[in-house]
Amino acid sequence: MADPRFFTPKGPFSLARLAELAVADLAPGADLAKEFTHVAPLETAGPEAVGFLDNRRYVDVFCQSRAGACVVRPAMADKAPAGMELLLAKEPYPAYARIARAFFPSSDPVSEVSPSAVVDSTARLSPDCRVEAGAFIGAGAEIGRRSTIRANAVIDAGVVIGNDCVVGACASLSHCLIGNRVVIYPGARIGQDGFGFATSKDGHLRIPQVGRVVIYDDVEIGANTTIDRGSGPDTVIGRGCMIDNLVQIAHNVQLGEGCIIVAQVGISGSTKLEDHVVAGGQAGLTGHLKIGKGSRIAAQAGVMRDTEPGQNYGGSPAVPAREWHRQTVALARLAAGKGTK
Amino acid sequence: MADPRFFTPKGPFSLARLAELAVADLAPGADLAKEFTHVAPLETAGPEAVGFLDNRRYVDVFCQSRAGACVVRPAMADKAPAGMELLLAKEPYPAYARIARAFFPSSDPVSEVSPSAVVDSTARLSPDCRVEAGAFIGAGAEIGRRSTIRANAVIDAGVVIGNDCVVGACASLSHCLIGNRVVIYPGARIGQDGFGFATSKDGHLRIPQVGRVVIYDDVEIGANTTIDRGSGPDTVIGRGCMIDNLVQIAHNVQLGEGCIIVAQVGISGSTKLEDHVVAGGQAGLTGHLKIGKGSRIAAQAGVMRDTEPGQNYGGSPAVPAREWHRQTVALARLAAGKGTK
Amino acid sequence: MADPRFFTPKGPFSLARLAELAVADLAPGADLAKEFTHVAPLETAGPEAVGFLDNRRYVDVFCQSRAGACVVRPAMADKAPAGMELLLAKEPYPAYARIARAFFPSSDPVSEVSPSAVVDSTARLSPDCRVEAGAFIGAGAEIGRRSTIRANAVIDAGVVIGNDCVVGACASLSHCLIGNRVVIYPGARIGQDGFGFATSKDGHLRIPQVGRVVIYDDVEIGANTTIDRGSGPDTVIGRGCMIDNLVQIAHNVQLGEGCIIVAQVGISGSTKLEDHVVAGGQAGLTGHLKIGKGSRIAAQAGVMRDTEPGQNYGGSPAVPAREWHRQTVALARLAAGKGTK
Repeated sequence: MADPRFFTPKGPFSLARLAELAVADLAPGADLAKEFTHVAPLETAGPEAVGFLDNRRYVDVFCQSRAGACVVRPAMADKAPAGMELLLAKEPYPAYARIARAFFPSSDPVSEVSPSAVVDSTARLSPDCRVEAGAFIGAGAEIGRRSTIRANAVIDAGVVIGNDCVVGACASLSHCLIGNRVVIYPGARIGQDGFGFATSKDGHLRIPQVGRVVIYDDVEIGANTTIDRGSGPDTVIGRGCMIDNLVQIAHNVQLGEGCIIVAQVGISGSTKLEDHVVAGGQAGLTGHLKIGKGSRIAAQAGVMRDTEPGQNYGGSPAVPAREWHRQTVALARLAAGKGTK
Repeated sequence: MADPRFFTPKGPFSLARLAELAVADLAPGADLAKEFTHVAPLETAGPEAVGFLDNRRYVDVFCQSRAGACVVRPAMADKAPAGMELLLAKEPYPAYARIARAFFPSSDPVSEVSPSAVVDSTARLSPDCRVEAGAFIGAGAEIGRRSTIRANAVIDAGVVIGNDCVVGACASLSHCLIGNRVVIYPGARIGQDGFGFATSKDGHLRIPQVGRVVIYDDVEIGANTTIDRGSGPDTVIGRGCMIDNLVQIAHNVQLGEGCIIVAQVGISGSTKLEDHVVAGGQAGLTGHLKIGKGSRIAAQAGVMRDTEPGQNYGGSPAVPAREWHRQTVALARLAAGKGTK
Repeated sequence: MADPRFFTPKGPFSLARLAELAVADLAPGADLAKEFTHVAPLETAGPEAVGFLDNRRYVDVFCQSRAGACVVRPAMADKAPAGMELLLAKEPYPAYARIARAFFPSSDPVSEVSPSAVVDSTARLSPDCRVEAGAFIGAGAEIGRRSTIRANAVIDAGVVIGNDCVVGACASLSHCLIGNRVVIYPGARIGQDGFGFATSKDGHLRIPQVGRVVIYDDVEIGANTTIDRGSGPDTVIGRGCMIDNLVQIAHNVQLGEGCIIVAQVGISGSTKLEDHVVAGGQAGLTGHLKIGKGSRIAAQAGVMRDTEPGQNYGGSPAVPAREWHRQTVALARLAAGKGTK
């Protein structure tokens, strides 16, 4: 059960209401009025909690769980332990997400500008935004409705932040325009100069970086992730992108809509990702590439060429995933002294 | 010699006292009363300094060193330059550690809450803790005895920090419970939401992350490292773990006792490391794995399967180390146009 | 055109003046008096803007650009669209850099110590330095002429910062000496303890790290990069080094002059890079290596041995680049069921 020092669930919700929220079916004989007070992992859930089963690795945990209800695929129904109510959904994870969000909704912030925040007199703060202790807001910056600037964050001059955003503790933003419902995690660095210099006989000459970072609606930027501003063009993060922790996004990179960028990925300058690209953890993409719509890049892959839409890639240097798997098998066989067939 | 702007050594200590501290043997004829004032690298140490030799790469440096004393393996004794006192230990590095800690002990902080810190009225601070300038302490948070919160760090509501801890400058902690003698380096991010969302036809649905981060005693968390809180279960860091800089630890990861996680490692969600696992720099572990007790993962390895206790792994995808070395050799021979034997 | 919320160009400059600044030749019949007001990417530049063409990938963009002037190699002159003035340079990128720097020079900061900064009474601040809101300056620290400490940065006791430096928002510095014209990006962590401990039967014994970080003139340190102080020797960053974001530099590492370290590189303890080494993104170097002058390490390479001066390396474990390419080709052929010739 969620630690009450940190979380306060809404509810309780009846089974009928949960099915409605989750867009899930109920099993015959379900007790529609039965009430539930929270969500919990199947291992530790008790009779008042709702859990979920999505990953087959955890079927045994499901079979022995004491959870009062569980979101599962219909095919798993007959493995459920006695007494467990079932919320049947073809895609249990988004169904569970809707239930968990009902118990733990994001709430509007308490509007307040901390007396220890430093806000430039020309900054424009919406009346219902929140600026916490030690935050800095520079000249001409704009903070939208119900947006929160957490403690010790730094918002530089001219930055525009839309509505319902959160900028995490100790994050810093400059030279950027941020849409609505954007969540920036603690320590993220957005809008600093890119790594732009020309090497000459006089040494490395820094080149002024006169673009911006433009972040569209519904984006998340992970903790300690760095996004450099463009050198002249902008660096662009498309609507609905999810970017994990410790990711590096270089100047002029463009991400389409709904991309998923897992932790510690690095994307070099001027590379363009079309919509719905997925890059696994620690993958690296060199500069000036075009990554086709819906390409999936495996963890630790090193992408050095453009990719085809909808295709999977892996390895370093990256190749189409099937080829990568063949290489892996061929190398193992070679090392074992076997032939390739 | 350590720069006096930054370090003030204790001492001097006699050779006899150093041998006692280090649990080291002395060579016949050692001058027990000879005094030493500091520790220093063998390259630059003078007659009043104590150095050490652990890595064979540096034997030549040892032979030419002017250090007054040196911690070495007994087998090296006959290579010592004339006039150098020897502290003989089978394991020179921990022996040297004990001597260096005598010269440079960690001292209790000066208790003080900076007038520019912002501390919620419901936070519970021990009377001998230290809270520096610009730090923020949220509602209900607890800071233990002799613990220090460095400048501009952010401790969110409900966080519990034990005794003799240090939270570095500009670090941020939320939704976490921290044991005793835990050192959190500058810029570390602990307890933010994990990268948890369900992809549906409505886009990426964020899933409330209602677990915590639980950190046991004697842990170190490196600079700019990120540790996400659990999604329902907790993220757990076991007693005595040493975590380097820029490491990513995802939600629900569990580390056993005494694990060593080198810089830039990434550990994906729900993976469990048993005790004393060592992960080399930039290694990546995918999610939902079980890493056996004492497994050693090579730098840059990409672990995609469970590992056996006590075994070494390398490569991407990772395989047992012997196999990895065979693969490396076989590929080099293949590229050179040679056979596999 | 650069967003006026963030950038205010100098100028206008005549074509003759731009040629002089860039040390570029003009084409016959050039309109020497024609004036230009800013720089812009070739895609979006209009008749008053100056662009550049360096990468062949963008020749088509050049041919269709509406830019009033463009810095290009002489060989490209005949592909220019009608009406475009040409600034001809064998190396267009540094030539463009000089023009862009004329439009967007770095200007001296407005001298001021924010009333919300916390500055120790024994710190020595030059009269024309700038210390922004929420910054902390510890006992005995020194800040040179025209140097800026951005908002919420932390400069610990004894740190020395030269002239014309910038320390970014939320960065933290301790135990370090910084030269002139050094730029430290937001969230960088410099001078904390290295990852130094000895493993013994009593657990992991932390070893006091009594060295410093010494950074020479004209260095850039990227956002959220971490540089640990030496254990006894110093960690040293040579003059003119360019270090990108999220780089890890461990204790006792030494970088020669003019090294280029791309994002997410990790360099392990005591490794020495000679002058002008280039390390590509996500490359990893193990400890105690000597990397020869001008060595070039490919992205994602894993260097485990010393390298020869002037040579290129790639792969993990890294080998000379030619060998790496042969391995890549040989493995692809093997996987395709073909021979090695």
